[in-house]
Amino acid sequence: MIENKNQSRTSLEQLGEFGLIEHLTKDFPIQQESTIKSVGDDAAVLSFEKEKVVVSTDLLIEGVHFDLAYAPLKHLGYKAVVVNISDICAMNAVPTQITVSIAVSNRFPLEALEELYEGIKLACNYYKVDLVGGDTTSSQTGLIISITAIGKANEDEIIYRSGAGDNNLLVVSGDIGGAYMGLQVLEREKQVFLVNPNSQPDLSMYDYIIERQLKPEARTDIRQLLKDLDVHPTSMIDISDGLSSEIFHLCTQSKVGCNLYEDKLPLDPQFINTCEEFNIDSTTMAINGGEDYELLFTIKMEDFEKVKANPNLTIIGHTTQESEGLHLITRANTKIPLKARGWNPLANNEEE
Amino acid sequence: MIENKNQSRTSLEQLGEFGLIEHLTKDFPIQQESTIKSVGDDAAVLSFEKEKVVVSTDLLIEGVHFDLAYAPLKHLGYKAVVVNISDICAMNAVPTQITVSIAVSNRFPLEALEELYEGIKLACNYYKVDLVGGDTTSSQTGLIISITAIGKANEDEIIYRSGAGDNNLLVVSGDIGGAYMGLQVLEREKQVFLVNPNSQPDLSMYDYIIERQLKPEARTDIRQLLKDLDVHPTSMIDISDGLSSEIFHLCTQSKVGCNLYEDKLPLDPQFINTCEEFNIDSTTMAINGGEDYELLFTIKMEDFEKVKANPNLTIIGHTTQESEGLHLITRANTKIPLKARGWNPLANNEEE
Repeated sequence: MIENKNQSRTSLEQLGEFGLIEHLTKDFPIQQESTIKSVGDDAAVLSFEKEKVVVSTDLLIEGVHFDLAYAPLKHLGYKAVVVNISDICAMNAVPTQITVSIAVSNRFPLEALEELYEGIKLACNYYKVDLVGGDTTSSQTGLIISITAIGKANEDEIIYRSGAGDNNLLVVSGDIGGAYMGLQVLEREKQVFLVNPNSQPDLSMYDYIIERQLKPEARTDIRQLLKDLDVHPTSMIDISDGLSSEIFHLCTQSKVGCNLYEDKLPLDPQFINTCEEFNIDSTTMAINGGEDYELLFTIKMEDFEKVKANPNLTIIGHTTQESEGLHLITRANTKIPLKARGWNPLANNEEE
Repeated sequence: MIENKNQSRTSLEQLGEFGLIEHLTKDFPIQQESTIKSVGDDAAVLSFEKEKVVVSTDLLIEGVHFDLAYAPLKHLGYKAVVVNISDICAMNAVPTQITVSIAVSNRFPLEALEELYEGIKLACNYYKVDLVGGDTTSSQTGLIISITAIGKANEDEIIYRSGAGDNNLLVVSGDIGGAYMGLQVLEREKQVFLVNPNSQPDLSMYDYIIERQLKPEARTDIRQLLKDLDVHPTSMIDISDGLSSEIFHLCTQSKVGCNLYEDKLPLDPQFINTCEEFNIDSTTMAINGGEDYELLFTIKMEDFEKVKANPNLTIIGHTTQESEGLHLITRANTKIPLKARGWNPLANNEEE
């Protein structure tokens, strides 16, 4: 519904691979001291010295991870960077560089890629990360984006998934579930648009959750916040596939169980209202919906006082002994087994 | 023609994304001291201290970069790693880690991915690089492989494309053109197979050039060789898209011209014989065919004696002043302008 039919079209073939990379990456300034050589050679050259290097990578496929019917290319570029930076944040590290590879079919003119790179540039500027490499090629169907993010941290700052102990507090940043409900609204509007292309939806009452879906942010601020609070989490992960799925990862790797409290889940009023409108259970959505890119971590019980009143952080439960398993404690004080129902990108692989 | 119709099939959906990653990466031992944390967290953690980090990335798409009709998955996995390691070699660095992301359609059972990872593992073992991360997801058509390679080198060891001076010698490792002619043989056999599926081609007379195409090697040995010869190249690049195209990159970035000598090109007899059989000009193939993954570099004239008798290295020309341009000096001693006709992956993007 956002597509502009009158856009000018420049064929990618005219530019060639190297002309294209050069054109798309020419306005990316170097912002990190650790970047010695950026785009333009066989490889980028980086310098970290005493700090450790953290590396994460993601592959985003049109029709699996995004739908260009409602994700504008600029937002998509921004989000693709954020998703990867979020993984660096989940190690309690500072994001410093990214590489971006794209494959596109001939459906995409140069102007579309410029828009995509506009979004990538916005994110690079906002998060102060350098675009240092990549690859452009053709695909037979649609758009494929592969991003590798690099970050740095001192060894003693890095937080793994496996460090949670028994009786740690389970903490989440921000609020959860919004991105998933934003997607539900966009999916609904897409169906309306397909029936009546002239409809002009008023989405203002969903602005927060739609932004959570289309233009999420990575919690690069949490590292400093925790430093200021003098709290060093015992384990950490980011919420990409859904809270329950991430809790399973943390607990499995840390060999602990956990109790999650339904009444503690941080939910935005717009998220709750939209769940009511869609007549679906907000707890189920908050636990299983993904793409919030908030951080989930555990802290020692003794750090409770430092965290409890912070508006950015919510204590949502605590770890237990591994043998006790993972449970949700409902508002009615019933203890039910927690299930990981996060998004499975492999459950959606019908060849067209 | 290599497809095994009786292979067993395990659906990827049953395993889920994390089960799949765990299954595919479980037999990859850590071989590099610099790998602190490998697969299994939000990001890998690496330690390089005084050495600089080099990073390169590539995206390989079925139908654009490879054809599963004649590229067995194991070879493809091996080659995908080699292609990326070659970029690290082109910086005169030591490859240390890779991340591998794949997207597959439901056409691929688990057993196919196991074969692909068999090849990846072979390459990791042979080149002593650690697989430290990745992503698996679904695609709507075919197989997509995205690899990021990481390497290390001291700052004064790193060689850029831009360092060639006027009157440097142009040197290439190994021989060139073979991979491209190997592809021509495979393409021909595929056509024969399509007409007569019972044909059993005898490819033994093409074994070298077919291996160059299906299972190339990265020249990790050249770094040590140059050290032993006490030669420090002024510029370097690897030959992925074709010699002429790479010469253009080196010369453009170094702001020099060059004379390339037709009679100096290192060609394997099997390559020459096959060109004759196909009735095509071997020089044209050697200059424009890609995927040899040999190294092309420039050295100072004073290093001539150190290099001239080395069986691994061939001096194929010299740089000139930029204003003189780039030329091929033919066997008949005619000077003709060199053209970059390297492979353009964007010239092949018809959406199906």
